[in-house]
Amino acid sequence: MSADVAARRGIPDASVARLPGYLQALTNFAERGIGSVSSEELATAAGVSSAKLRKDLSHLGSYGVRGVGYEVDRLSYEISTALGLTQDWPVAIIGMGNLGRALAAYSGFATRGFNVIAVLDRDADLVGAAVGEHRIRPMGDLGALVRDDRLAIGVIATPADSAQEVADHLVSAGVRSILNFAPCVLDVPDDVMVRKVDMSTELQILAFHEQRRTGELDLSAQSTVEGVAL
Amino acid sequence: MSADVAARRGIPDASVARLPGYLQALTNFAERGIGSVSSEELATAAGVSSAKLRKDLSHLGSYGVRGVGYEVDRLSYEISTALGLTQDWPVAIIGMGNLGRALAAYSGFATRGFNVIAVLDRDADLVGAAVGEHRIRPMGDLGALVRDDRLAIGVIATPADSAQEVADHLVSAGVRSILNFAPCVLDVPDDVMVRKVDMSTELQILAFHEQRRTGELDLSAQSTVEGVAL
Repeated sequence: MSADVAARRGIPDASVARLPGYLQALTNFAERGIGSVSSEELATAAGVSSAKLRKDLSHLGSYGVRGVGYEVDRLSYEISTALGLTQDWPVAIIGMGNLGRALAAYSGFATRGFNVIAVLDRDADLVGAAVGEHRIRPMGDLGALVRDDRLAIGVIATPADSAQEVADHLVSAGVRSILNFAPCVLDVPDDVMVRKVDMSTELQILAFHEQRRTGELDLSAQSTVEGVAL
Repeated sequence: MSADVAARRGIPDASVARLPGYLQALTNFAERGIGSVSSEELATAAGVSSAKLRKDLSHLGSYGVRGVGYEVDRLSYEISTALGLTQDWPVAIIGMGNLGRALAAYSGFATRGFNVIAVLDRDADLVGAAVGEHRIRPMGDLGALVRDDRLAIGVIATPADSAQEVADHLVSAGVRSILNFAPCVLDVPDDVMVRKVDMSTELQILAFHEQRRTGELDLSAQSTVEGVAL
C-alpha cells in the first residue's frame, strides 16, 4: 500500500464529515465559473476556519499553492476520489411514501455518484407500481440485489414505526451501510454503519439566528437557565 | 441584559451548528430511559470529542457535575432554550411536490418547536387542494402570513429551477430565514440567512466508509491523486 492510500484510510472521521461540505462549496464555485479559490474563500463558503480546512485537506495530500490557492476542478476530483465517489454506488430506497418518492427523484444523488438501482416497499399493494423509471419491488428482493447488483447502501424512508423492521431486513440481506430518514434510533449490529438525516437540524440553526435577530428571548426560561448554571 | 444573555448571544457559529446534534443525542438517551450521561457518552453519541462538547456547552453555562455528568432532561431544556426552540416558530413550506408533502407530514419538525402554518405552491391548479390538515395556498399569501401570522422561516421544497424565484418571493414578503432543499445556490440580500439541506451529504460519508471497508479503491484514480499532491 502506498503512503498516500495509508494516509487516506487514516483520515479522521471529523474530517471525513466535512469533506462533503467542501465538495458542495467547490461545486457552487464551479457553477459560478470560478476556476480557483483561496483557502480563506473556500473555508468561508464551507463555514469552517481556514486553518481547519487546510488541515482537513492535508489528509488528502492537497496543500494548494501559495498566492493561487486551490484549483476548483482538481480539488473537487481529489475529494470525490477520497470519498469514493468516482465509482458508482448502488443504492436502494425503501418506503415509497412521499419522502421515498422525493428521494427517488432527487437529482442531487446522481450527480454525487449514487445510483438508485431499486425502490422497495413492504406493502404488497404497492409492489409493481411505477415510481419514475422504477417499479416498486418487494422486500424479499433485497437479497438478490446485494448478491447480483452489489447493493451497498440502503436508504430508509419509512415512517418511524416501521424503520426498525426495514433495518432488520437490510441487515439480514447483507447491507452494512444504512441512511435513515425516519426520526428514530435503529438497533443494528456493530459492523453496520447507520447515518441519520434529521431534517430539522438546519431549521434549528435558523431558529437560533432568528431569535438573536429579533431579540425576542424568553426571559422566564432564561432565568431558569441561569438558576441551574453550575 | 444579563451576562448570561450576552454570553449566549456570543455563542460561536460552529458551536451553534453542533447544538442540534447534542439535542438529538439527548433525545435518543431520553427515549431509552437514560436520565444522566457523562460528557464522554454524550460526545461519543454526537460524534465529537468530549473536550469540544464541554467547551460548546460552557457557552450555555452548562458544565455538568463531576462523577455524575449531565442530566438529560435539564441539558435538553437548556439547549432548546439557547436555540430558541422553547417558543414555536411559524414555518411555511413552498412547493407541494413529493418532497414538500413529505416535509409537511414530517413529525420531526413539530417535536422541535416548528409549526407548519401554511403550505404554498405557485401552480394555480394546485391551490386549494388538501395536504394533510392544510389547503395549498397561492404565493400571493406570503405577505399576509408574515404580517398577520409572524411567519419567520420559509422552506423551499421546489425543483432547482424554480427555487430562486420562490426565494425572491419570500424575501420580498419579508422572510429573512430560508431553508433550501433544492440542489442549487440562492442569491439573496446580505441580511437573509439561507441554510441548505443536501440530502446526499450523509450518503457521501457512508460511501467513504464502504470504500474503506471493501478496500475497493480505484487505483487508477489513486495514482492521479498522488501525481498532483503538492
